This record gives sequence, structure tokens and C-alpha cells, in this order.
Amino acid sequence: MHGRIELIPIVGIGEVRPGDDLAAILGDAVEAGPDLVDGDVVVVTHKVVSKAEGAVADVGPGPDAHRSVVESEAVDVIRRRGDLVIARTRHGFICANAGVDRSNVEAGRVVLLPRDPDRSAHRIRLRLEQRFGVAVAVVVTDTFGRPWRRGLVDVAIGMSGLAAVDDHRGRTDTHGNTLDVTEVAIVDELAAAADLVMGKATGVPAAIVRGLTVPAGDGRVADLVRPADEDLFR
Amino acid sequence: MHGRIELIPIVGIGEVRPGDDLAAILGDAVEAGPDLVDGDVVVVTHKVVSKAEGAVADVGPGPDAHRSVVESEAVDVIRRRGDLVIARTRHGFICANAGVDRSNVEAGRVVLLPRDPDRSAHRIRLRLEQRFGVAVAVVVTDTFGRPWRRGLVDVAIGMSGLAAVDDHRGRTDTHGNTLDVTEVAIVDELAAAADLVMGKATGVPAAIVRGLTVPAGDGRVADLVRPADEDLFR
Repeated sequence: MHGRIELIPIVGIGEVRPGDDLAAILGDAVEAGPDLVDGDVVVVTHKVVSKAEGAVADVGPGPDAHRSVVESEAVDVIRRRGDLVIARTRHGFICANAGVDRSNVEAGRVVLLPRDPDRSAHRIRLRLEQRFGVAVAVVVTDTFGRPWRRGLVDVAIGMSGLAAVDDHRGRTDTHGNTLDVTEVAIVDELAAAADLVMGKATGVPAAIVRGLTVPAGDGRVADLVRPADEDLFR
Repeated sequence: MHGRIELIPIVGIGEVRPGDDLAAILGDAVEAGPDLVDGDVVVVTHKVVSKAEGAVADVGPGPDAHRSVVESEAVDVIRRRGDLVIARTRHGFICANAGVDRSNVEAGRVVLLPRDPDRSAHRIRLRLEQRFGVAVAVVVTDTFGRPWRRGLVDVAIGMSGLAAVDDHRGRTDTHGNTLDVTEVAIVDELAAAADLVMGKATGVPAAIVRGLTVPAGDGRVADLVRPADEDLFR
């Protein structure tokens, strides 16, 4: 089954502030635009999730203030070079600045990661399903670097309503070989795909991926975090 | 400018063999299906590129034979644990088994990476542009793991006809802040997106990404490889 997939930006969301009802805001933007249909995956950048949840911090001026927030968000600093800190967050994510971001927020504030992004995704999903009467999935994203490649890509940091990986274990290819590639991180491919219609500088914090044959499941991004004993690069 | 993007599988390609004219095969499948329009990005898994170029090797039975091909493809072994070898290839990619893959090839053979995947992409692009009379981009992909996350995602290993990264350096967000995220690896997001309609087990080795506002450029994946002096995880 290989149909086409559509990536649809959700426009008109505007600035999100602590205490805002993000599910309602998303729902209004969806209702005014592409609507929701069964099987849609709603992808939303954590930036607006964190803001709505109040996961922001005030910082003073200058780089030191920012750095102290990074240190407090980091469970463990993995590498440090100059101003660059690669840290492990309480979620287990290993990323620059422990996920603390100065972009797309007013001066003097920084945006942190949501405390439990899988749960954030789940709450948004339940609200959207209730309002629109359809079964959807929700993915919350952030933008991460990669150790050996320049440039950043969006990945999932929270999810609800689909499998995190498309598990090929035990399946064979058209030649009857067992597949070397066993677990495709579908949810990260969804995050990357959605970013193609979102954009960092243009105020489009959400998108719909429509037409995906979603592997059923109740995956959590927390389960994508590689445990320390499998990690060769810590 | 945020339009919709379509991900379109290219079906009907069938088995590709050494010496086959892949650009012609792709062109036939495109002509029979979605056609090509200006701005399309044609994404193709390296598996069929390598086969057409003869980048395959005969191996004897058993894991030792496979391992010896991996060692010969590896410029440098970065980590080793049990049967898992994380190696650097001559292209600079750091990946499992130096890119040597036993899936989707007849028993007793393995598929290697193309010798110069940027050039492979370029050759396919020129042929498609000539045949269809439109300007397109071509991306050649492979499936890589990530050090800190379970599951694999498709990334670009070769490209022609677009910028590798969407460079936000110096741009500001809607609040006037300079963006923290400076370089988005668009080409890797394209690779991941296309995989959503390709699939490992189903013989769909190519897809079209239609509707992307492609940053103009002549990026090469070779330029995405992080140089040793920037690499904190070697």
C-alpha cells in the first residue's frame, strides 16, 4: 500500500503565551484551514507546547544567564567546547544546550523543553479527537544536531497515537533475506517531513501529515531513548 | 510561503541489476505514473543506484565473509561491539557496517555504497532533466542509525540541484531574536520524508517530493560531513 502523503502547514496560530489553551488554538487553526480526518498526524513544534505549559524561564542579559539555565536543565554534560554544551536532559535526550532555546521567544526569556512531552502530545490528541470526532496522532518536535553531520533536523520529543518505530524484525525483503534494517524510527521521519512545511522563522509551528498508513500502536518517544548500556558514544 | 507538499511513491521499478540504466528505468516509471514537474525532488535509495553502478560484492556464506567486506569498505572503525561495527567510509559517513548491506539483494551478494553518491545524483538529474524538460533535484539516500536514539532514519548520501542546508544565519525570528537554529539540513529532512512512502520491504525504491520551495543551490552531501576538527564524538 503506497499512496501519496500530503504535508499541510497549519497557519494562523500566532503567538502562544503561558496559560494559553494550545489544543483550542490548534483546533481553531485546523478548523479554519485543512480540517482533520481520520489517520492525520498533527505535528507541533515543542516551542508552542512549552510556552502554553509555562516551560519558559526569565534570564538576565548576557550569555552567563543563558548558560546558568542550561546547566540547571542538564542532568549530565556530555561534551563541552567553547559556548557549545551537549547535555543530557531529564528526558534522556542528548542535545545542544539541554534544549534551552532563545529563538522565537521575547527577549530576556528562554524556552525549555516540556516536562513530559509524551504526555503533552497525549493531552493535545485527546482534545483534538474529542473536538473533531476523528482518530489522529500527535507528535511534538524539537530541532537537534547530529554528531557527524552538519545541519540540524527536526526529531520527535513527544508522541501519542501511533507506533514510534515500524518494526521489520523477522520480515524479509523481496529476495527472502531477513532485513538488516529492523526498526525504522517513523516518528522521527514524520517530524523531519513536517518541518519541510513549518520553517523556523515564519511562525508556522504546526503541520498535518495526511495519508500515512500509520502503524498502530501507543509508542512513546521516551522509549526511543537509547539506554546507557547500549550507548557507545556517551 | 507555505504551500502543501506531496510525497509520491514511484512504483513499478522492479529489480535493478549491474549495468542497468537507472535513469532510464526511473524515467519510465515516472512517465507511467506521476510525471515530473519543475521543482520536483526525486529521492532514490542508494540500493538501486549501487546495483546499477555495480557497487556490489560477492560474499561467501557465513558472517565472516560479510565482515571482511565491511572491513575493506571501512576507512576507520569508530566503535565495535559484538557483531556491530560503526565505521567511517571513504566518503566520511559514520554508519553501521560501513554501509555494507545484505538486504534487498540476492543471497551471496552485498550492496556497497556508491563510490561518489553526489556524482550519481548529478548524473541521474541531468538525464531526467533532459528527458522531461524540467528542472528537478535528485537525492540519493541510505538508512542510518543514531548514537542516542533507537531506530533508524533515512538520510541523504548524495544530492544534486538544491542546497543541502537552509541557512538561517543572520536571520531573525518574529521577535527580532537572532535564530539559534542556523542551518537546517533540508536534504536530510527530504530523505526522511520520502522514506514515509518508500518502505524497506516492498520494492518501492524512489519517490517524488513535490511542492517544496527548494532553496536554490548546488549543495553536496560531501559538504554535510562534519570535519574531524569539529567532531566531538569520534
